[in-house]
Amino acid sequence: MSSNPSIGHYLLTRLYESGVHHIFGVPGDYILRFYQQLSESPVQHIGTTREDTAAFATDAYARCRGLGAMAVTYGVGALNVVNAVAGAHAESSPIVVISGAPGIKERREHPLLHHRFGPFRLQREIFERITCAVAVLDDPYTAFRQIDRVLAAAREHCKPVYIELPRDRVDTEGYPIPSESLPAPASDAASLNEAVEEALQLLDEAASPVLVAGVELHRRGLQDQLLSLVDKTHLPVAATLTGKSVLGERHPCYLGIYEGAMGSPLARDRVEQADFLLMLGVTLNDVDLGIFTARLDANRIIRASQDEVIIHHHRYPQVLLRDFVSMLNERMTPRPQTGPAVAAKPAAFDFPVKGQPMKIIRLIARLNRFLTPDMVVVSDVGDCLFSAIDLRVHENSEFLASAYYTSMGFAVPAALGAQIARPTRRTLVLVGDGAFQMTGTELSTIAHLGLNPIVIVFNNKGYSTERYILDGPFNDIPAWQFERLGELFGPLTGYAASTEDEFEDCLNQALAQRSSPSLINVHLSPDDPSAAMRGLAEHLGKRV
Amino acid sequence: MSSNPSIGHYLLTRLYESGVHHIFGVPGDYILRFYQQLSESPVQHIGTTREDTAAFATDAYARCRGLGAMAVTYGVGALNVVNAVAGAHAESSPIVVISGAPGIKERREHPLLHHRFGPFRLQREIFERITCAVAVLDDPYTAFRQIDRVLAAAREHCKPVYIELPRDRVDTEGYPIPSESLPAPASDAASLNEAVEEALQLLDEAASPVLVAGVELHRRGLQDQLLSLVDKTHLPVAATLTGKSVLGERHPCYLGIYEGAMGSPLARDRVEQADFLLMLGVTLNDVDLGIFTARLDANRIIRASQDEVIIHHHRYPQVLLRDFVSMLNERMTPRPQTGPAVAAKPAAFDFPVKGQPMKIIRLIARLNRFLTPDMVVVSDVGDCLFSAIDLRVHENSEFLASAYYTSMGFAVPAALGAQIARPTRRTLVLVGDGAFQMTGTELSTIAHLGLNPIVIVFNNKGYSTERYILDGPFNDIPAWQFERLGELFGPLTGYAASTEDEFEDCLNQALAQRSSPSLINVHLSPDDPSAAMRGLAEHLGKRV
Repeated sequence: MSSNPSIGHYLLTRLYESGVHHIFGVPGDYILRFYQQLSESPVQHIGTTREDTAAFATDAYARCRGLGAMAVTYGVGALNVVNAVAGAHAESSPIVVISGAPGIKERREHPLLHHRFGPFRLQREIFERITCAVAVLDDPYTAFRQIDRVLAAAREHCKPVYIELPRDRVDTEGYPIPSESLPAPASDAASLNEAVEEALQLLDEAASPVLVAGVELHRRGLQDQLLSLVDKTHLPVAATLTGKSVLGERHPCYLGIYEGAMGSPLARDRVEQADFLLMLGVTLNDVDLGIFTARLDANRIIRASQDEVIIHHHRYPQVLLRDFVSMLNERMTPRPQTGPAVAAKPAAFDFPVKGQPMKIIRLIARLNRFLTPDMVVVSDVGDCLFSAIDLRVHENSEFLASAYYTSMGFAVPAALGAQIARPTRRTLVLVGDGAFQMTGTELSTIAHLGLNPIVIVFNNKGYSTERYILDGPFNDIPAWQFERLGELFGPLTGYAASTEDEFEDCLNQALAQRSSPSLINVHLSPDDPSAAMRGLAEHLGKRV
Repeated sequence: MSSNPSIGHYLLTRLYESGVHHIFGVPGDYILRFYQQLSESPVQHIGTTREDTAAFATDAYARCRGLGAMAVTYGVGALNVVNAVAGAHAESSPIVVISGAPGIKERREHPLLHHRFGPFRLQREIFERITCAVAVLDDPYTAFRQIDRVLAAAREHCKPVYIELPRDRVDTEGYPIPSESLPAPASDAASLNEAVEEALQLLDEAASPVLVAGVELHRRGLQDQLLSLVDKTHLPVAATLTGKSVLGERHPCYLGIYEGAMGSPLARDRVEQADFLLMLGVTLNDVDLGIFTARLDANRIIRASQDEVIIHHHRYPQVLLRDFVSMLNERMTPRPQTGPAVAAKPAAFDFPVKGQPMKIIRLIARLNRFLTPDMVVVSDVGDCLFSAIDLRVHENSEFLASAYYTSMGFAVPAALGAQIARPTRRTLVLVGDGAFQMTGTELSTIAHLGLNPIVIVFNNKGYSTERYILDGPFNDIPAWQFERLGELFGPLTGYAASTEDEFEDCLNQALAQRSSPSLINVHLSPDDPSAAMRGLAEHLGKRV
C-alpha cells in the first residue's frame, strides 16, 4: 500500500511519458518541494530569469514537441505568466502550467500568507479564463485522475491547462486509478463521409483550385499528411501567416503566404482568382486576413477547422480535421501538374553592395539565402514578422511566432524553448528593438546553456508598426547598444551593422560561432517598412 | 451641446485633478488613440520597457501621491500587469489600470481580432479578481459617472481599479452628470466614541504600553497624525515591516521593526513584554508576524484596522482608522517620557576595514550612515529586504517595498515611480541579483529621464532566501556583470565591490554622481544571511 507514488512523482512521470523531458520556470517557496522532486527525476529543469519568459519558452517547446510544461510559485509566479498563457491559448499551444500553492493545512484559518492577493480560489478562477482545463490537486484520492484529465484536455484541445499543487500535497501518496483511458474525440462517420464526398466533387469540378494551409495543421501534427496530399494532387498551396511553414516553403507547389494585401503577391493572385479554395486548418483571424484586406468568397470555399467542415454556407459538425485530411488523402485523385508555383531563383543577387545602408527588404532577401535546412526561424511581432512573410524556410515547422496573439517579447525566450526541444536545430531569431527590450536578457539563460541562436535585432528606433498607425513621441524608445549585451553576461558575441557589407561580415562570423549565441544589431531607418506594411498602406490608400 | 468633453479627455482631466500628473505604460494599437489624447494633455506619459514594470512604477507613484495611473493595450498589455496589479491589491496601493480594447463597432460579428484570447468579457473578469472596482466605458451616457465611481473606489479602498476603454469611445463625447458627489465612508459616531473610551481607559491603566504602527497608516496618509500622537504621548513605537517608515525612524520614541524573531531585538523585547499594545493600521500577515514567530496575546491588544477596531475579543465595526487615530490624538493625555527608545549611536564605526570582504550586516550599517533626509529607500524582496529592517530612514514614507506580496523585481521600476512622484528625493535601491535579472533593465528608462538613483545589488549568487528553505541546483542563476550594464545603455555608471574599502570608494563616487543613475554590484557570500534570517533560524532551532 505504501508503494503508491506521490502526487508530485505521478505528475512528473506522466509528463515524462508524454514527451515532456524539460520543465521551465523560476522556483519559489510554494513550489520548492516540487522542484526538489523535479531535480531527482529524469525531467530536467530549465531555469529562466523570469516566469513569463519561461512560459514563452514552454509555448515554443510545446509547438515543437506536442506538449510543454512549466512550474512556478503561487501568486507572484503564476500571475506573471497570465499574458503568455493567454497567448498560448489564442495560438493553440498545449502547455501545462504547474503552480505551487499554500498547503491545505496552513490555509485552515485563512491566514494572510505572503503572495496572497485575495481568497485562495481566485488564482484558479483567473486561469480558468485562459486555459481549457484546471485541476487543484488538494485531494489524494482524485489527484491522479485529475492529472490524467487535464493532460488529455491539453492534447485534445491543443490549449494550455492549469494544475495547482498545494505544497503539502507534493509528497502525499496518491490513490491508484483504474487504467481505463478517457474517451478520445472522434468524427461522426456519416458526416465525415458526406463532407468528403461533397468536397471531392467540388474540387473535381474546379478548374483552378488552390489549397490554403493554416495553423491547425501545425497544431494537430498533420504536416506530413499535408505534404502527402500536395505531392499526390499537385494542388498549389498557400499558407496563412499563423500557418507559416506547415509545408516546407521551398516545395515546388508552394505559392507563399496568403494574407490579403500583406502577403505574397503571387499567393494573393492565385488564391483570390482561384475558382475553389480548400482551406485546411485555417483560422479566420484579422492577421491572417491581412487586417481584413483579404477578398474571399464563402461560395467558393471548403474550410475544415479542428472539428467542423464548412462548405459554402452549410456545416458538417463533428468532423475532425485529421480525419478529413486523411480521407481526402486516400480518395483525392492526382490533378495535372501545373509546373512549379515558385518563380525560379533570380540568378544574380548583388549582396552586399559596399556602403549601402541596410534596408529591411534586402535584409530578408539575404537571410533567405542564409537559411539552411537545419535552421528554425523564431520571429517576434511587428515589422520583423511582416517582413518574415517573404522568408522561405526549408523544412516544415521551422517557423515559430506569436503571429495572431502578437505578444511582444515572444521570440528570444521562444528560441530557448525551441532549441531545448529540437537540439539538432539552430535558431535564427528575428526581433525588433522594442520587443528585445522586453525579454532579450533571457539570452542569459541561452548563453549559460551553451545554445547558439543567431539573433537579428531589427533596430528601427521605436515601435515602428505603431508609427504607421498613429505616430507620436510615445513610440520612441531609448537606444540600446544591443551588440554590447555580452558585456553584461556571456558568452555572447555581439555585432552591429549599418551597411550591407558590415552585415555580410557579421552574418558570416555569427554562422561560424557554433558554441554560443550571437546577436547582430542591424540599424534600419524608422521609415523603412516591410513589403507587407507597404502593401497594406497601398491597399488602404493611405498611410496605415 | 457639442462642448462636452470626450470620454478620454474627461478621464485625463479627472486624473489630473486627483494629483495624477504622470501616466506610465507601453502603447499598443488599441490604446493609441488615448495615447494621442494623453500627449496633448497636461498629464505626462512615462514610457517603460515593459508593462509590468510600468505597473510597479505606478504602484510606487500611488504610494507617494495617493493615486497613480497606467495605460496599456488590450490582452498583451493588460495581461502582462496581472501580477503587479494583484501585488498592488495585496499591498493596498490605489492604481488605475487603463486598458484599451477593440472598438464596440468592430466587435459586432465577434471577429478574431489580434490580442484576443477568448470572449471580450474575460479580461474584465480577470481584473475583477485583482481590483476593487471595474468599469467598461462602452456607453457615453454613463461613462463619466463610471469614471467618478471607480476613482472614488480606488481612494476609498486604497486598492487598484480597472478601466476598459474601447478604442472607438476615446473621442466620443460623454454625457454630463450632476455634480452630486458619491457618498463618502464615515464612522458610526457611537461606536467610535465607545471604542475610543475603552481604549483610553485600557491605555491609562497600562504600565508599559507600546504602539505598533502598520501599513494602513501609510496608505491612509495618517503619518502626521501618528507623529503628533507619539510626540504628545511619548508612547514607544515599533513599526511592522510593511509599515516601515510610517514614522521617521530616527524619532526618539522609535524602537525599530517588530517582526517576531526576524525584527529588531529591542522592538521584540518591548512589544512582547508590553502589558498593552495599541496596534494602529497593522495587518496580521505572515511577513509582519515574522513567519508566525511573533508572540502576541489578543487579551492585551487594541487593534484598529481600516474600518474596525478590535479590543480583546470584541469588535467595533464601522470605525474608520483615520477617525479613531484622530480622536485618540485629541483625547489621549501625555504619559511620562521614558527616555529615548533608540540606543545612542555607537561613537566609533571602523568602516571600511581595508581588504575585508563585504558582509551583509556591515553593508547595512554603512548605508545607515550614508542615508540623508532627502533619500527614499526602495527595497526588493529576499534578504535585501530582511536586512533593510535594520536601516533607519530619516523622514516618514521614505521606505517602499513589496514587503507582504513579495514580488521579485519590484524595486528598480518602483524607484522610477518614486523619483517621478517625488522629484526632490533621491532613491537608494536595494535589490538582489535574482530580482535584478527580472526587471533591472528598467534602469534604461531611469537613465533616459536623467534620474539619479543609487542601486545596490546584493549579489549573493542565486535565490538565497530559498537556499535557507530548501536548497538545490534550481537556486543557482547565471552570473551577470551588473556593473557593466551601462555598456548596453546609459548614462549609467557601474561599480563592483568585494571589500569594504572598494565599497566605500564606490559609494562616495555614486553619491557625487547626481545627474544619472549609479549601480554598485556588491559581491556577497551565498552563506551570509541577514540578521533577520539568522534570527528566524535560531528561533526555529534549525536551518530555516
